[in-house]
Amino acid sequence: MPAMTLDDFRALIADLPSADGAAMAGALSRNGQLTKPPGSLGRLEGVAIWLAGWQGSEKPRVLAPQVAIFAGNHGVVAQGVSAFPAEVTVQMVANFQHGGAAVNQLARVAGAAMTVTALELDRPTADFTAGDAMTADETAAALQAGWDAVLDSADLLVPGEMGIGNTTSAAAIAHALYGGTPEDWVGRGTGVDDQGLARKASAVARGVGRLGTRDPLGVLAGVGGREIAAMAGAILRARHLRIPVLLDGFIACSAAAVLQAANPQALDHCMAAHVSAEAAHGRLLTALRKEPLLNLGLRLGEGSGAALAINIVRAAAECHSGMATFAEAGVAGG
Amino acid sequence: MPAMTLDDFRALIADLPSADGAAMAGALSRNGQLTKPPGSLGRLEGVAIWLAGWQGSEKPRVLAPQVAIFAGNHGVVAQGVSAFPAEVTVQMVANFQHGGAAVNQLARVAGAAMTVTALELDRPTADFTAGDAMTADETAAALQAGWDAVLDSADLLVPGEMGIGNTTSAAAIAHALYGGTPEDWVGRGTGVDDQGLARKASAVARGVGRLGTRDPLGVLAGVGGREIAAMAGAILRARHLRIPVLLDGFIACSAAAVLQAANPQALDHCMAAHVSAEAAHGRLLTALRKEPLLNLGLRLGEGSGAALAINIVRAAAECHSGMATFAEAGVAGG
Repeated sequence: MPAMTLDDFRALIADLPSADGAAMAGALSRNGQLTKPPGSLGRLEGVAIWLAGWQGSEKPRVLAPQVAIFAGNHGVVAQGVSAFPAEVTVQMVANFQHGGAAVNQLARVAGAAMTVTALELDRPTADFTAGDAMTADETAAALQAGWDAVLDSADLLVPGEMGIGNTTSAAAIAHALYGGTPEDWVGRGTGVDDQGLARKASAVARGVGRLGTRDPLGVLAGVGGREIAAMAGAILRARHLRIPVLLDGFIACSAAAVLQAANPQALDHCMAAHVSAEAAHGRLLTALRKEPLLNLGLRLGEGSGAALAINIVRAAAECHSGMATFAEAGVAGG
Repeated sequence: MPAMTLDDFRALIADLPSADGAAMAGALSRNGQLTKPPGSLGRLEGVAIWLAGWQGSEKPRVLAPQVAIFAGNHGVVAQGVSAFPAEVTVQMVANFQHGGAAVNQLARVAGAAMTVTALELDRPTADFTAGDAMTADETAAALQAGWDAVLDSADLLVPGEMGIGNTTSAAAIAHALYGGTPEDWVGRGTGVDDQGLARKASAVARGVGRLGTRDPLGVLAGVGGREIAAMAGAILRARHLRIPVLLDGFIACSAAAVLQAANPQALDHCMAAHVSAEAAHGRLLTALRKEPLLNLGLRLGEGSGAALAINIVRAAAECHSGMATFAEAGVAGG
């Protein structure tokens, strides 16, 4: 396909397919007939019905999940915002490719296909404290990398990321979209000290202060990063394919936030997999109106929290689709 | 083996093996070398180290989990304490055997062997408001049924239960062991109304009021049930085999509480899988000093919440045992 422009993506965000209402209604009816007291599977019941709507099936399954990892480098690391050096991004991409990272183990446990897309790691984004992180064309290319990475055979998508410095970029996006103070949105990332935290807040303040009035994709270009744009592109592509999405941590949710800011319905196919230990993630989930499935203190990125939640979603689907009804089992009380 | 007596079980509870300290120390050291920022896998890190201690391996795995379900009937249902009739217990056992219940699907997703032990369903315990639920011999036989049900090849155990009326029995055990009011410990179970809830509190008050001074196994005989005793026996057997255990909901935790009341170290090999929507479960976990892994509003029993958590524990083990170290991966910053 020819390269898409930012305006092409604006149009794709504005015009989104909805969930299959008939499949959801069928799933809701089936849920009431299963051999369990009403409501006793708690959140698993709502997860199954949500999945039914996006998979377009009264009996959803999770048979072919995809963990799609995107990596990018960030010019803002020049501001001293990370505890790790920028070369760790490319080293970790090699670790993903050799199967040694946390997310490799988590994808394997989840029976998920894992794809890794490295986005011009030798060409970091510009330092956003001084100018836009990406041009419009660079932003569109990164969105398209995400768009293109989604397997159309996937029945559940986990977008994940790696990029030294990217919690600062995510914080800048959140601050630009939702306001508050820079301090509301910065956290310790991979483990910066108090001075590093102050440098992050300062970088966010300067980057966002520079933006002026922009639409959400303009914010993404201004203070975002290639892997963040790619995750947004992947979430958008999943929506057009009606593939349900599990949102990972703070950075993945900053990508999602760009879409929701552009279209309030844009994340209806997304569920929050977990709330991380990165302080601002809970605040961002509140802004996204998403209730996380897990709260286990993870703060790794890589899609790790969402990969961990795949088996929760699969379990919800299997209970819903595999259980006997009261009538089938001859159990009283249905 | 010849039938064991209650005193045999008292001796087995008093003399317990400990975790493998060397394996835990090795796992702790390995955890610090893995390709991730320190602490970034949150609770998964502690889960892996706990598992290392009980499996006696620096690189624990979850390859052969067992979900062991026990079913019993309760004379206290004569007090109108359940929303479902007593015949549902035997109907649900058939549903377990035919693969139609929620826990069947959850065990399959977890790759777990599932065993079902029906405990004299045609001979309910006595109504504990009028006299002891079980004789000493009946209690010992039920403990032994649980003891015998544990597969010595298991590397993780989930004890689960089915028994119409058993939240009332669990509430009575908790009230007897921890005090408070009967109302502190009764909940809606499978879905009783306000009057049913009041009948549960009344039954608990009368049952516990009748007990006088007893040791924990005496409490179990007085107001417990066969499936609750069997879960206690299974948890105890797992300890002697050094098999780690995931605790399910309120009823499974009432079985665990009997052991902990008898020996404060008795649950060191146990982790709380989830906190259920049954109101008193959170209170009981606090008494047990256990922090749940999941909080998804389940209130089904059957070992369902703990079966759901097996893949979380497996994921923790796989991350710990499968990830590359900084040195192996050539990643800076380790």
